[in-house]
Amino acid sequence: MPELRKDPITGRWVIIATERAKRPDQFVGHSEGPKEGKCPFCEGSEYDTPPELYAVRKAHSRLNSPGWQVRVVNSIKPFLNIEGNLDRHGKGIFDIVHGVGAHEVIIETPRHIANIADLSVEQISRVMHVYTQRFKELEKDERLKYLLVFKNYGWSAGGGRIKHSRSQLIATPVNPKRVKEELAGSRKYFEYHDRCVYCDLIRQELDFKERVIIEVDGFVALVPFASRFPFEVWILPKNHNCDFSVISQPHQKNLAKILKIILLKLKKAANDPPYNYILHTAPFRRPKIGYWKTIDQDYHWHIEIIPRLTRVAGFEWGTGFYICPLPPENAAKFLREISEV
Amino acid sequence: MPELRKDPITGRWVIIATERAKRPDQFVGHSEGPKEGKCPFCEGSEYDTPPELYAVRKAHSRLNSPGWQVRVVNSIKPFLNIEGNLDRHGKGIFDIVHGVGAHEVIIETPRHIANIADLSVEQISRVMHVYTQRFKELEKDERLKYLLVFKNYGWSAGGGRIKHSRSQLIATPVNPKRVKEELAGSRKYFEYHDRCVYCDLIRQELDFKERVIIEVDGFVALVPFASRFPFEVWILPKNHNCDFSVISQPHQKNLAKILKIILLKLKKAANDPPYNYILHTAPFRRPKIGYWKTIDQDYHWHIEIIPRLTRVAGFEWGTGFYICPLPPENAAKFLREISEV
Repeated sequence: MPELRKDPITGRWVIIATERAKRPDQFVGHSEGPKEGKCPFCEGSEYDTPPELYAVRKAHSRLNSPGWQVRVVNSIKPFLNIEGNLDRHGKGIFDIVHGVGAHEVIIETPRHIANIADLSVEQISRVMHVYTQRFKELEKDERLKYLLVFKNYGWSAGGGRIKHSRSQLIATPVNPKRVKEELAGSRKYFEYHDRCVYCDLIRQELDFKERVIIEVDGFVALVPFASRFPFEVWILPKNHNCDFSVISQPHQKNLAKILKIILLKLKKAANDPPYNYILHTAPFRRPKIGYWKTIDQDYHWHIEIIPRLTRVAGFEWGTGFYICPLPPENAAKFLREISEV
Repeated sequence: MPELRKDPITGRWVIIATERAKRPDQFVGHSEGPKEGKCPFCEGSEYDTPPELYAVRKAHSRLNSPGWQVRVVNSIKPFLNIEGNLDRHGKGIFDIVHGVGAHEVIIETPRHIANIADLSVEQISRVMHVYTQRFKELEKDERLKYLLVFKNYGWSAGGGRIKHSRSQLIATPVNPKRVKEELAGSRKYFEYHDRCVYCDLIRQELDFKERVIIEVDGFVALVPFASRFPFEVWILPKNHNCDFSVISQPHQKNLAKILKIILLKLKKAANDPPYNYILHTAPFRRPKIGYWKTIDQDYHWHIEIIPRLTRVAGFEWGTGFYICPLPPENAAKFLREISEV
């Protein structure tokens, strides 16, 4: 059973992995991307993965067999286990929770394609739909507080040996620190202004245009004012909404469209860079503010795309500051002008 | 002039670099450590660096000439500039500060040696002494709030092309987020218990021993309970002290000794891994709690050593969680048993 441990000073949670645990003498190499083996994610290899949890399938095709378009399975080496109870306990000044949670893999295509940017808008739209379905399913589990969907593309972004387009989701039994920071920050802004900080940010960016890359119906993609990384991009719904899982089918398609355009632009801008994307949405069980207000009003879901082109060094670890060697306005201009085709 | 920008949601600061700025089309390679050129840090090349700010020198040797043991110069491409004023200003919802601060390089040896672990205890002790002197000097500058000393060893830890042992310091005009988190967390603990959380942590770790690697007079090295990274190590003074810069000469030597032992053990344990270390100490201008209490009582300076053996991926960026594939107790046992000679 993995263990969640809390740093007694900062309150930061750490997962001490057991399924992926290594022996101390196994950290000798600093390998940079080993060879690719047989792909368990391709159509026809369904029995090389853990059993199917969910799939978009052709009519009459059978579970764990060909005929699917998007397929969800448990991670073969999960960071958190779906079985068990939290068993919160202490050990002197330390806090420990059993590593209960979900860790699933969303296989984005039956074909052996590496980058989601190279899938069709229809296919990416199916992937977005599957994300919403997993939110709805996992929200039912009372032990879980937050669900993060993310993608690791390329070795230095944490991508695996097998280059088959997929994303992952991890559902955690505690609210993660970074999400809490966003929630707390946007609540503070709301309490002062009675407006959503993301809505204000979108309005200001659309007025000035200098950091906007592209707009499609319902969505905008921009380089954030305080970018941590060169070519960092945020995709935000233009209309206020705290909850990704309720977006409509047409919106799923528009989101797929803007995501594809941005990822293709990045691919051209920086020679197919490794990247992560993360989906930040409201936690499952939303706390109330005062008598009736929920965070529905002050939080705004969005996707953050982080190309991995710089190295994180001691200064960043020690301070939480980031150093961005590319002014966001220059990055936005370059991405606006570069063609995605 | 570099610009400090604040994320309007989380309050995270970012430095938009100008001296190290790149054009958008310069991010095409993901190079892993280019060739080494002529070393400007070796004795005899003093005019290849910016002018000397401080040095430990033989009697009668001249500034910017051979005869030094440890030498401090400005960074040739500083992230922050020492000249100018902060000029705090807003732009709609955004906050901006001029990038005023210090960015210096501490050259740890006149000889071309890469890893501080390979210097003598006497020489490392001189480096610790030089750190304290820079704290005392830069504290006089009223614009500066915090000073971080850090080291980037090896390419994937952010180390440079030139492999000559050195550390860096950056002094910032705002208190960094991660430091504030530690200060706030330890203050909260102090307010509840009237004791320093680090002192309690040290006492508990010394009782249980399972995560302690080694003790020397005045210091302990341990693997933290909630390690973020395999072989993460903290070095802490056993007696309460919030301020690194006031440590005595004998303590500088003991610190040098334990630092050398730990870094040699890591070198053996993980095949000379890339690593960062960071020195966390109290901010320059310490806020008062209530009428007379300062953070002197609730904060405890320490060094965090982070070997860079794992990749940080989307889940970590999205949540602030870390996944550690090596249980801290196993890491501590391995490091205890491996000989440093």
